[in-house]
Amino acid sequence: MSTKLDGEALTYHSMGKPGKVDVRPSKPSNTERYLSLAYSPGVAAPCKAIAKNPDDAYLYTTKGNLVAVITNGSAVLGLGNIGPLAGKPVMEGKGVLFKEFANIDVFDLELKTNSAEEFIAAVKTLEPTFGGINLEDIAAPDCFIIEDRLKKEMNIPVFHDDQHGTAIICGAALLNAAKVQKKKIKNLHVVFNGAGAAAIACAKLFFRLGVSPKNLFMCDSKGVIYKGRTEGMNEWKQEFAVDTPHRTLADALKGADVFCGLSVAGVFTPDMLKSMGKNPIVFAMANPDPEITPEDALKTRQDVIVATGRSDYPNQVNNVLGFPSIFRGALDVQATQINEEMKLAAVSALAELAQQDVPESVAQAYGNKQFHFGPEYIIPKPFDSRVLLNVAPAVAKAAMDSGVARKPIKDFKAYRESLEALESATRGFVRTVINKIHYNTRRSGKEPPTIIFPEGRSEKILKALNTLASEKICKPILLGYEQVVQEKIEKLELEELKNVPIFQPSKHPRFGFYAEELYKMRQRKGVMLAEAERLISDPYYFAAMAVHTGDAHGLVSGAIQNYADCVKPILQIIGSDEHGLASGLNTVLFKEKMYFFSDTTINIEPSAV
Amino acid sequence: MSTKLDGEALTYHSMGKPGKVDVRPSKPSNTERYLSLAYSPGVAAPCKAIAKNPDDAYLYTTKGNLVAVITNGSAVLGLGNIGPLAGKPVMEGKGVLFKEFANIDVFDLELKTNSAEEFIAAVKTLEPTFGGINLEDIAAPDCFIIEDRLKKEMNIPVFHDDQHGTAIICGAALLNAAKVQKKKIKNLHVVFNGAGAAAIACAKLFFRLGVSPKNLFMCDSKGVIYKGRTEGMNEWKQEFAVDTPHRTLADALKGADVFCGLSVAGVFTPDMLKSMGKNPIVFAMANPDPEITPEDALKTRQDVIVATGRSDYPNQVNNVLGFPSIFRGALDVQATQINEEMKLAAVSALAELAQQDVPESVAQAYGNKQFHFGPEYIIPKPFDSRVLLNVAPAVAKAAMDSGVARKPIKDFKAYRESLEALESATRGFVRTVINKIHYNTRRSGKEPPTIIFPEGRSEKILKALNTLASEKICKPILLGYEQVVQEKIEKLELEELKNVPIFQPSKHPRFGFYAEELYKMRQRKGVMLAEAERLISDPYYFAAMAVHTGDAHGLVSGAIQNYADCVKPILQIIGSDEHGLASGLNTVLFKEKMYFFSDTTINIEPSAV
Repeated sequence: MSTKLDGEALTYHSMGKPGKVDVRPSKPSNTERYLSLAYSPGVAAPCKAIAKNPDDAYLYTTKGNLVAVITNGSAVLGLGNIGPLAGKPVMEGKGVLFKEFANIDVFDLELKTNSAEEFIAAVKTLEPTFGGINLEDIAAPDCFIIEDRLKKEMNIPVFHDDQHGTAIICGAALLNAAKVQKKKIKNLHVVFNGAGAAAIACAKLFFRLGVSPKNLFMCDSKGVIYKGRTEGMNEWKQEFAVDTPHRTLADALKGADVFCGLSVAGVFTPDMLKSMGKNPIVFAMANPDPEITPEDALKTRQDVIVATGRSDYPNQVNNVLGFPSIFRGALDVQATQINEEMKLAAVSALAELAQQDVPESVAQAYGNKQFHFGPEYIIPKPFDSRVLLNVAPAVAKAAMDSGVARKPIKDFKAYRESLEALESATRGFVRTVINKIHYNTRRSGKEPPTIIFPEGRSEKILKALNTLASEKICKPILLGYEQVVQEKIEKLELEELKNVPIFQPSKHPRFGFYAEELYKMRQRKGVMLAEAERLISDPYYFAAMAVHTGDAHGLVSGAIQNYADCVKPILQIIGSDEHGLASGLNTVLFKEKMYFFSDTTINIEPSAV
Repeated sequence: MSTKLDGEALTYHSMGKPGKVDVRPSKPSNTERYLSLAYSPGVAAPCKAIAKNPDDAYLYTTKGNLVAVITNGSAVLGLGNIGPLAGKPVMEGKGVLFKEFANIDVFDLELKTNSAEEFIAAVKTLEPTFGGINLEDIAAPDCFIIEDRLKKEMNIPVFHDDQHGTAIICGAALLNAAKVQKKKIKNLHVVFNGAGAAAIACAKLFFRLGVSPKNLFMCDSKGVIYKGRTEGMNEWKQEFAVDTPHRTLADALKGADVFCGLSVAGVFTPDMLKSMGKNPIVFAMANPDPEITPEDALKTRQDVIVATGRSDYPNQVNNVLGFPSIFRGALDVQATQINEEMKLAAVSALAELAQQDVPESVAQAYGNKQFHFGPEYIIPKPFDSRVLLNVAPAVAKAAMDSGVARKPIKDFKAYRESLEALESATRGFVRTVINKIHYNTRRSGKEPPTIIFPEGRSEKILKALNTLASEKICKPILLGYEQVVQEKIEKLELEELKNVPIFQPSKHPRFGFYAEELYKMRQRKGVMLAEAERLISDPYYFAAMAVHTGDAHGLVSGAIQNYADCVKPILQIIGSDEHGLASGLNTVLFKEKMYFFSDTTINIEPSAV
């Protein structure tokens, strides 16, 4: 084991506030006024609304974006039954992945119980709290019993990721590996080693993808599960018992097309691999060390496709390709369950995505490696942002088509855009604001509006603008040191921004006029001309004045951190300070009207421009 | 009802992402590297550590700062049994208060069950997840049964805030009201109206504060609870049955010293008030409308002290004065329970605080009202930051003294400082960094070090520095436009900063030299002198170069938002770019060594300076 990694991981988990979870108010809450809205007396209004119409919980509470990651710690990673407390770091980590990959809020709950019935009873009571339940690291066979019961008895999605997450990624890998190896799914001779929860879920999904039950052989530590075997059997394994003379893994593998290992390192030998049929497919998914290393496999024969659970080899079967996007899609239609149709939709979406060209951004995220559909790239990479954009809508649509969506999505284009916006709060913010402006511009038939961006030096703003500039939906003006901003534009290769005007406020032709105007406006409050000039040198004052005088139609300040910088001058110039100031908000000003927005979501009235 | 407030509250709850909760990673997690520490394979190390030593959960997970706010929605605010789903906005709001007032992370859990046994069973399983349990809005008598059982059967604090939170604030108010009215507690004739959970908890606490059981009369809708009464009784009310001829509230109040209302608006009439003894004390805590309004009470007689649950009158009995600080203290010593000693410590700390002079900052938070101990100020104001600083250590100490603290606090001065640091991340950050420097300076007997602050225009930084400047533990240099910074210093009345040197980088005598140095250093990377000059005009580059050349001993960039601005020049100047960049961190640079810190917590090696 890597003790260096262990040391780093312990430091990482303990530095600053212990653990990995931070729960914060998502709304401004740092004044008495805000607290009177967040709590008593204001909070009574949403309570009453929900009491009247339970669906309003999705409107006024976090329920619709909140998933419970729940375990009893009975089968944690490769560590076994270490109990709920020791499993907590994994559950917190799962929450981190949900947030990073799909912006889903997670409460990780570690339950102290070894009884399936107690576990079921506890989780059932939690239904009002959550939009979905992700079961995690629960040992078989309890995991089957628990999931089965909860799915029947709860009206929100219940998903045991160790089973179905793994199965979905494997399923996508199987479809693509078969395509590359030019094999028909229905003819595949498949051998599993391992008969635990993940293996059983994979095998079941393989059947649904077209594998014939008579061609699938499941082995456990006692060898092949055959009809009539009595040793070490249970009702879940029984389903896979086949009529066969094979008794050992080695027997079963002779001439096989697919080896699917969910067992332990080293059990799959080069001789076994040699005995398989032409162009074999090997999923060696034991963690952390696979049943056979890709090096050994490829040394043994060149015609093999290998996938593992490891990030340092090609074809990583990583659950993060599944659960964040699957829950995203399920939550976004308020699905009552994650059913077979939704799982199959995720399989197809992942398989199809791997067949597409890989954009530069993904290559960059992986050290400029190039990925092309083939033996070394049968499933998308975990850090490919297209996964969310493809899988979540596919799952949402499958939920709608199969009748389990309580709130169907009407506009999938807008939905995809909202998913894109998740990728970057700032990019999403700028895009949404500009889209709204565009909408109003097109309706009115007017010229696109002039928008001034005081944060010309912000790389985030520049990148966001670049992706939009080609659409010619606004005339941007950037503020900042020309050389600095220009250099950033060049460094970031933002071709679309090459001819955008960039001004240092004090060198702008209207500088003197703005200072004069501000001086006149604020004179009675004791502002001197010299001071007005100094203020107008500040990009935020300059931008606010450009809007005030009508030189620009709007001001967009995308960076959350610049809230105060941006708002104060606006308040001074439009002569009001009655707006409550709050941190963590974005701001946009259109002609005397100011809009505050939290995080990524924007509501601009069509009348705003 | 205020429909305007209702409308605002609905907008507030639904704007942006619905609800009030955001769960985020507290550690950097936006790269593959970080995720390999947060999840597989790195996460195995903390799991194994906790499996070996369960106490390590407090070191590697959020458990030690995580409280569950749990309800079944059976008695929500003044709304009654609206159920768990409709109660969710209140529970989320409670979480907001925990975070805002004591930086405690909260998972709000709404349980679908009307059975006390099911509730108990579910909460018991949650023990590994949390550092404490706050029960909320559960109807009597289940709330007694549930709390009682959970306290006995769990090893973490369980606290029903509606009972004990209210009782603690009331208790502090009683002690101080009696002091102002010059009454002895043991002689008080006390009449309760309302015999629900809060009233019973208050009455029990009043006994512990010295009220004599024979002098306390509890009334419910059927009148006085007297010995022998059978109608509408239960075992909890029975404890308060007294041998008395009084049968009605009006009877019981004749000559009384204290009225304690936890009932409904208007039941306490001016005539009843008139019938009370000299200098009466009236706690009219019905929500939202008190049993008698303070106006009516004071119109009836001038010698009365009135407290209510409302923020728009003096003497607000607001639970936020209690639960955040009580849990803060309990969590910080890893208390196994919140016992009577801890509750009484909270009562005393609150009562004593109200007797102290009120600092300017509190007056400012309340529109420059002046507060002095007396009839209109018997309990601290909710937004008084001293509440946390006084109550949490008192509770922690009581836990230690009564033997329920698993991790005693050794240095209460340092503990109070850490609580002060909660108040403002930046202020805490700067204080801690400077304290560390101070420590090293004193040890070495050297002159205090010169520290350069590139964010001279940040009001947060200026305020933080001002509180520290009098201690003369560093020589600060502020960067920024002299006039702007000076103006802020004057506006904020930061007396200690009046003579601190402020430089615009380009006007600093070393500007040319730094530019030259940077040019030399980066020449081979294609940096021209003109470009170097431009870069050195940037306060972050200038500050980094000041440290690099030895003109300053350290650079402190406190503002979280300026992370990238600050770090990039440092990396360029110290010639390394191997540090992973992450947002949401603070930075400090001492002589070529850079330290990154998340949020408020800092660990600087003594060797850092």
